[in-house]
Amino acid sequence: MKLENPAPLQWQFSQRADAMKSSAIREILKVTMRPDITSFAGGLPSPLTFPVEHMKTAFDRVLSQQGKMALQYGPTDGYLPLREWIAASLSTNGAQISAEQVLMVSGSQQGLDLLGKVLIDEGSKVLVETPSYLGALQAFALYGAKFESVPSDEFGLQPETIEAIAGGARMLYSLPNFQNPTGRTLPTERRFKLVETCARLGLPLIEDDPYGALSYQNAPLPKMLSMNPSGVIYMGSFSKVLTPGIRLGYVVAPRPLILKMEQAKQATDLHTAQLTQMVVYEAIKDGFLDQHVPTIRKLYGDQCQAMLDALQQYFPASCSWSKPEGGMFIWVTLPEHIDAGALLNEAVEQEKVAFVPGAPFYANVAQKNTLRLSFVTVPPEQIRAGVERLGKLIASKL
Amino acid sequence: MKLENPAPLQWQFSQRADAMKSSAIREILKVTMRPDITSFAGGLPSPLTFPVEHMKTAFDRVLSQQGKMALQYGPTDGYLPLREWIAASLSTNGAQISAEQVLMVSGSQQGLDLLGKVLIDEGSKVLVETPSYLGALQAFALYGAKFESVPSDEFGLQPETIEAIAGGARMLYSLPNFQNPTGRTLPTERRFKLVETCARLGLPLIEDDPYGALSYQNAPLPKMLSMNPSGVIYMGSFSKVLTPGIRLGYVVAPRPLILKMEQAKQATDLHTAQLTQMVVYEAIKDGFLDQHVPTIRKLYGDQCQAMLDALQQYFPASCSWSKPEGGMFIWVTLPEHIDAGALLNEAVEQEKVAFVPGAPFYANVAQKNTLRLSFVTVPPEQIRAGVERLGKLIASKL
Repeated sequence: MKLENPAPLQWQFSQRADAMKSSAIREILKVTMRPDITSFAGGLPSPLTFPVEHMKTAFDRVLSQQGKMALQYGPTDGYLPLREWIAASLSTNGAQISAEQVLMVSGSQQGLDLLGKVLIDEGSKVLVETPSYLGALQAFALYGAKFESVPSDEFGLQPETIEAIAGGARMLYSLPNFQNPTGRTLPTERRFKLVETCARLGLPLIEDDPYGALSYQNAPLPKMLSMNPSGVIYMGSFSKVLTPGIRLGYVVAPRPLILKMEQAKQATDLHTAQLTQMVVYEAIKDGFLDQHVPTIRKLYGDQCQAMLDALQQYFPASCSWSKPEGGMFIWVTLPEHIDAGALLNEAVEQEKVAFVPGAPFYANVAQKNTLRLSFVTVPPEQIRAGVERLGKLIASKL
Repeated sequence: MKLENPAPLQWQFSQRADAMKSSAIREILKVTMRPDITSFAGGLPSPLTFPVEHMKTAFDRVLSQQGKMALQYGPTDGYLPLREWIAASLSTNGAQISAEQVLMVSGSQQGLDLLGKVLIDEGSKVLVETPSYLGALQAFALYGAKFESVPSDEFGLQPETIEAIAGGARMLYSLPNFQNPTGRTLPTERRFKLVETCARLGLPLIEDDPYGALSYQNAPLPKMLSMNPSGVIYMGSFSKVLTPGIRLGYVVAPRPLILKMEQAKQATDLHTAQLTQMVVYEAIKDGFLDQHVPTIRKLYGDQCQAMLDALQQYFPASCSWSKPEGGMFIWVTLPEHIDAGALLNEAVEQEKVAFVPGAPFYANVAQKNTLRLSFVTVPPEQIRAGVERLGKLIASKL
């Protein structure tokens, strides 16, 4: 039985669906996967850092010893031993975090989606950095967020500017360590001032921290969570320290918010894969990350230095760029008359080099003469050669 | 540095978060996990059916052969070989489904969430069966759905009633095979009539089919998708035929909807775990399900029969119940004066038997003298003893 010549449906999408745009970065990534392109456009960790054998052993052990449980439905809040491990790891600088404050999510992006679901109404004001992480802007925009960009400089957002613009805001979203896209780090004094200001204003402060463990040299700066666990919502991820393809992250927040997010998660995907959580716990419980993460720091630090050296050598003096102390990204500011979006086409077609234009990372007024470079998946010689070609192209525009 | 005596945040949640209620079923399940309780309340597949060794081999193989790729970020629409496998498996009865129409999701529940995201605005009318799957009601309610219950009988919804109530509706949600919660099956003629009516009205028809493969005896009825691929949105899952804890499902729909859902999924969780998709493909590509699923059918069919026999023997004649031809649930209708919600407390405390009251499955007017029984995780002798105790309790109310 088959319907003959049915008319195609005339789709009526929701208003939020009509307003969605495809991620500019994802569209660019499709082009830059051509093998002849040196791509600084990616946001992917280096597969050289994936501990494949260690993960294989962990999968084997969990499936051998607790296979039935690992493959069954699990609790919405997550696998308790892993939540306890996370709580303990975040109980630093005198802060006491309990497993009850930890919700496991299917990657940090889901944490952003759930935050949007439970905190944002159509038109709600949300404060963000200038520029900010594109994935967060997209997740919050889907729920109708109206963004207010907090004035920011090379050290991140300026806490003293917040009070004047925070009226009626639902939250402030920040990424203090080696920010995506700029690579910049918020200094300790600004962190404290930010925590203090948000607490005084009753404004939930989101601390998104996927890159925090990737400091090349220095000890990590104190987490804002540790400064005020009752006012900070912390987001962590295993994507950058273990592997991203398993999709595992977590949100740490005061109990009333965790309960609401857990309810929202029930309706969203029931729970995050139990097997994945048990395997990650198996993989890290005996201190594996303490030996493994330094190897990532070393690789990324060396490649970052290679790119900084190449920028110094090959980019025109009228360009400037961030000097990250960790993470995966360098942020370049071109002379004001150069639009990085227009430059990208020429860079790809003529010079076989790709990057991400900066404009999509701005929630409000875009600074179009900016771009993001990632150095983590490109070997040093290619970094050097790619930066050289890009530098020449930019020089030809001066 | 630590903030001294911060005031706790006064949370302002979104309107949708304020309206959320915890799943009645999840709350009940917490109580019924006590080991002294015989629980017919679960919705979990039997762990006896989980092919642990086979999955272990598949994980080992994928991580050994394609570990780096499996652990890297992946495409939002999913792993192409698996999408091709799904498209081929659904190209039945002359229908041609392509991989482009398949979106991989983190369990069927995420498919429901994404459908809600892209199709439902605050106040949008959504047609549902009477009663309907609670997880779908929760997912759609989160986006502001206003439900209209389609008149339904023991064979499912009555297609001839739809036209009068469909004006302005965004979609019709149906679960035609061994429905959760009733266990009933929509006959072929009704399927065709439903497909034809929805096509004529321009109404997207959701065919949620997690249990379709679990027919005890008979060949499966034709899928509505095969009757009109341009008007039906099909949802499938590996939870009931492989294992649920890995969280893997899929949505098959016309391309314009798949593109919108893919965009929404980008902002929701980037993509579903690449490793999981590669492992499931590895596990099923050589026909494993053809041997494995019959063992599930046999187990569930035998236990269903044990429960039907026990109901016949021990339940008062004034009760009636469905006789499922597949799936995991039996639906019981009690004499009208008995409220199954009130009965549950006594059943648990006095008789150590649990079930799920029927009321939460009704989107509009609840029929409170109904309840859902699952037989899949309880051995036959315990089914018999539990039904006997429950039957006596009900008889004491007559």
